[in-house]
Amino acid sequence: MTMPTPLTGVVPPVCTPLTPDHEVDTASLTRLVDHLVGGGVDGLFVLGSSSEAAYLTDAQRGVVIDTVVGHVGGQLPVLAGVIDMATPRVLDHVRSVTDAGADGVVATAPFYTRTHPAEVARHFRLVAAGSPVPVFAYDLPVAVHSKLGAELVLELASEGVLAGLKDSSGEEGNFREVVLGARLRPDVTGFSVLTGSETTVDAALAMGADGVVPGLGNVDPEGYARLYRYCREGDWGRARVEQERLCGLFGMVGVGDAGRMGGSSSALGAFKAALYLRGVIACPVTAEPQVPLASGEVERVGKFLAGAGLL
Amino acid sequence: MTMPTPLTGVVPPVCTPLTPDHEVDTASLTRLVDHLVGGGVDGLFVLGSSSEAAYLTDAQRGVVIDTVVGHVGGQLPVLAGVIDMATPRVLDHVRSVTDAGADGVVATAPFYTRTHPAEVARHFRLVAAGSPVPVFAYDLPVAVHSKLGAELVLELASEGVLAGLKDSSGEEGNFREVVLGARLRPDVTGFSVLTGSETTVDAALAMGADGVVPGLGNVDPEGYARLYRYCREGDWGRARVEQERLCGLFGMVGVGDAGRMGGSSSALGAFKAALYLRGVIACPVTAEPQVPLASGEVERVGKFLAGAGLL
Amino acid sequence: MTMPTPLTGVVPPVCTPLTPDHEVDTASLTRLVDHLVGGGVDGLFVLGSSSEAAYLTDAQRGVVIDTVVGHVGGQLPVLAGVIDMATPRVLDHVRSVTDAGADGVVATAPFYTRTHPAEVARHFRLVAAGSPVPVFAYDLPVAVHSKLGAELVLELASEGVLAGLKDSSGEEGNFREVVLGARLRPDVTGFSVLTGSETTVDAALAMGADGVVPGLGNVDPEGYARLYRYCREGDWGRARVEQERLCGLFGMVGVGDAGRMGGSSSALGAFKAALYLRGVIACPVTAEPQVPLASGEVERVGKFLAGAGLL
Amino acid sequence: MTMPTPLTGVVPPVCTPLTPDHEVDTASLTRLVDHLVGGGVDGLFVLGSSSEAAYLTDAQRGVVIDTVVGHVGGQLPVLAGVIDMATPRVLDHVRSVTDAGADGVVATAPFYTRTHPAEVARHFRLVAAGSPVPVFAYDLPVAVHSKLGAELVLELASEGVLAGLKDSSGEEGNFREVVLGARLRPDVTGFSVLTGSETTVDAALAMGADGVVPGLGNVDPEGYARLYRYCREGDWGRARVEQERLCGLFGMVGVGDAGRMGGSSSALGAFKAALYLRGVIACPVTAEPQVPLASGEVERVGKFLAGAGLL
Repeated sequence: MTMPTPLTGVVPPVCTPLTPDHEVDTASLTRLVDHLVGGGVDGLFVLGSSSEAAYLTDAQRGVVIDTVVGHVGGQLPVLAGVIDMATPRVLDHVRSVTDAGADGVVATAPFYTRTHPAEVARHFRLVAAGSPVPVFAYDLPVAVHSKLGAELVLELASEGVLAGLKDSSGEEGNFREVVLGARLRPDVTGFSVLTGSETTVDAALAMGADGVVPGLGNVDPEGYARLYRYCREGDWGRARVEQERLCGLFGMVGVGDAGRMGGSSSALGAFKAALYLRGVIACPVTAEPQVPLASGEVERVGKFLAGAGLL
Repeated sequence: MTMPTPLTGVVPPVCTPLTPDHEVDTASLTRLVDHLVGGGVDGLFVLGSSSEAAYLTDAQRGVVIDTVVGHVGGQLPVLAGVIDMATPRVLDHVRSVTDAGADGVVATAPFYTRTHPAEVARHFRLVAAGSPVPVFAYDLPVAVHSKLGAELVLELASEGVLAGLKDSSGEEGNFREVVLGARLRPDVTGFSVLTGSETTVDAALAMGADGVVPGLGNVDPEGYARLYRYCREGDWGRARVEQERLCGLFGMVGVGDAGRMGGSSSALGAFKAALYLRGVIACPVTAEPQVPLASGEVERVGKFLAGAGLL
Repeated sequence: MTMPTPLTGVVPPVCTPLTPDHEVDTASLTRLVDHLVGGGVDGLFVLGSSSEAAYLTDAQRGVVIDTVVGHVGGQLPVLAGVIDMATPRVLDHVRSVTDAGADGVVATAPFYTRTHPAEVARHFRLVAAGSPVPVFAYDLPVAVHSKLGAELVLELASEGVLAGLKDSSGEEGNFREVVLGARLRPDVTGFSVLTGSETTVDAALAMGADGVVPGLGNVDPEGYARLYRYCREGDWGRARVEQERLCGLFGMVGVGDAGRMGGSSSALGAFKAALYLRGVIACPVTAEPQVPLASGEVERVGKFLAGAGLL
Repeated sequence: MTMPTPLTGVVPPVCTPLTPDHEVDTASLTRLVDHLVGGGVDGLFVLGSSSEAAYLTDAQRGVVIDTVVGHVGGQLPVLAGVIDMATPRVLDHVRSVTDAGADGVVATAPFYTRTHPAEVARHFRLVAAGSPVPVFAYDLPVAVHSKLGAELVLELASEGVLAGLKDSSGEEGNFREVVLGARLRPDVTGFSVLTGSETTVDAALAMGADGVVPGLGNVDPEGYARLYRYCREGDWGRARVEQERLCGLFGMVGVGDAGRMGGSSSALGAFKAALYLRGVIACPVTAEPQVPLASGEVERVGKFLAGAGLL
């Protein structure tokens, strides 16, 4: 399908369910897609960070994109991450996911390499030149270890290199600068500004953002769809109540013992445990070398679900 | 061939010559291998950071390892980088390079992902379990954004998980701790400690390190071979003179204009320009999106070569 | 005067006007205080980062607090920064500023030292034990190089150690967690959550924050007072228009040439240039070793003022 | 006394013994000075990081410098740290310590503030202009959060702004660049390059460094004096044996439980515990808010002393 311009609404980064021996569980994945589409989301983002794309082999990434594109059948747009270190490797992923039918690609700045801002701009220009579909920039400094500044993003938007931004930096000032620039600059049109934050969606939409890419949307897509609708209707009171309920639910990311595992493993483990407890996926395992949640930690995920009315 | 235990000597990270349209230039690559072997090195390390592995596609990585292993024909050990974000992707590279005949693999801690120290240990254990050849840890905090501490490295050495360490951190205190631990701990045997520094090789060897993996060794393998020999003979005076000559030559990494390109692009561009000027490779181009050196900057590389007696 | 519980409204960090030979210009300082009080602010914060406290000698800090407390005469609360490296030095400043009449003190976590989270908590407990007035925590990771997490802040709030938080981290997720915790936790009462951001005040207040500490409030106190009032009245449409006007004005922080000075020097230089151009202070000089704005850069500040209707 | 040009040898950063109620213990301090001078050191560095200068109030700093200068009576040079955030505050400390008789001052780049490299240079120029005695730069990125590059240091050396460098960065490549530049540049004369590392002194001196400023030198001044002498005599074999003994002793810095205290608190606590166990100081307490070592951890310090033949 053609990507809406700008892309708006709730576009969750789709978790990648795995079997106990760490292969992609396609049956669970299609159930998860049904759960999200049925929950009222506006698009899907596969092979992002919450999808554990950094862990998946190329073959596994292929299974994911084939499964999701095939199952969605053009009902709503599918964006695919092309997460890799530098331009030539990223372009390989662009070819793979667009051959498989992705409607848009999501690329970070180079990482591992030490890359000058001028080279970051060059990277996005080369990726766009090699992509048959729109390119979204993915700002995730905690993983990429550089920040996409508002000025660079808006420049690339004005050149038509970028169709949108997924901002998972949590840096509110720069985000608003992009939102304002996208609205006020006459040379920027149809640019989609999406927040990757689970807990400040009402604020982002009130500022004028176009949508949200919430990892927690895997667990409660209806909640984010409602939150988005309230914001669009200008019903800020109900939006805040819904957002605060989701903030409470988001507490699940902290169930993992910080002495034993990373915060990212805890968050991904919690999302998968919640999907397992809600009956959406068959197995909550995460990719290697992530430490799994202990049983008591999974129980605490259940309490978060219960507290949010989801069990 | 079987990897020496421990691996010792000069093991340069082999640059990857590219054609003007950014494909692997196999003719230049074999000339570079001849240049290095003829220069007296003790092993080769392909697909590392100085090889621009982060930029090369999997197909290009395949061409590199096939070309080098085929050309070397078992004369000396070939280590291959398996640089990727997390365990399953790294294991894919392990399979590829060992199928192609690599004698050892070199792996970093996970990057892009946020990984707990306990998960880093698990990562190396899984990589070793999946590798038919010895595994060397690659400590490069400037790229990986975490540090391999001496305690973790020595623990993994004592378990037989790691066969060696390539330390490109530039952190001298932790390096010496590993060197001492490798010598003094009874449960650690045959462990190879290699410095990735170009400019403190005499110091590292004086401390008891086993060898060096110098990017600049591409340009002047004879120099590093001499330096290694002087150190092994305990001729610290001549070693220091040779090392200081190489320190002067190393100044070439700074020729690139910092306002226009990254330090890494400058260094890789300088090494390749030097190899081009010395007639070893046909074209000094670096991989995208790195900004190339300007002609005046290439001229300055030539002056560094002349100053070190290499032109 | 007694500090309101919680402290609410607009509490600008008061710039410290200097004479051409870098002494505190008390005449300009009292004019600035009049400008702020007349602009409708709810409190004053002296000796913070925007006050260049890190540059001022202890004697100069003394002149500032004496001048402001004396001039304000209890009309509205005066908070004073006690910015220093570690607990004993911070306690010295607590004594100085409270002897001079400060109504509250604002302290960061230790910096320069490498301090464990448990030691950060101990620091705030000791500062509170030694302070006759309420203690506010100042979260400014870009200067302090550690982050005050929501859990720690709320724990210290529940113990009565902290009376409030000035959050200048720009990290929206953690900020909302503190706001929600301050409202929902039964053991936390009267705790004031203030944002240090100039450009997301409407969002912060919509989430339930108590007030704002905007550096740009020196330049346009009326603007922030209006913005605060619109938010309190629930007039989010007018609030957004006012906030966006202030976002435009805030662009002045970028006038300084990044090749020649730091971003902080540029921002402080711009605020002082604006106060100078508006006739509030006699001289726009900043403290050593900050590079001053060039005359063309000061002109650009004037254009930002004109664009916002302030000249 | 007049500072030697260049300053050479062992110049330990003198610990600041405290009483149980956290005041400077001048009796213990003079015993510590006697212990160091008797141990054969070549100079003393008071009010540095290992002296807990970041914690000491200005009054306490005054007691330290008065006590040490008075007790030393010109027998050997006394350097004093002037650790503070920015230029005017640093200049205040310069006045205090030179009024008290310091023979040289040691200053970091500005911290807490965000300072451009051009402003860092300006800072050192202003400090030197305001100092009646030679100025040494202190490179400690772990505390200051910026790095003094070789080029800047050598430029300031050539201008006569800096008399030396204390490099506690642990970054070996940049250190060697300074050492070589200080020897080879005709415009740099009498510049003293000192390493702050405890564990790579032999390597630093072999490269051509002038001396060492070892925190562990408080505990074992004789050891460092011997190590320095062996290196100067070119007896690298005995130097290495002595250095490795000191590396073993240095292991004491890790006795503190990382779950409970910072690494810096552990190291300072261990040095003071060792001085206490050796009978040099009366009380091992460290400044607030540092967590003290537990009794079992102090016992482990004793084992390190015993292992190095010091108990």
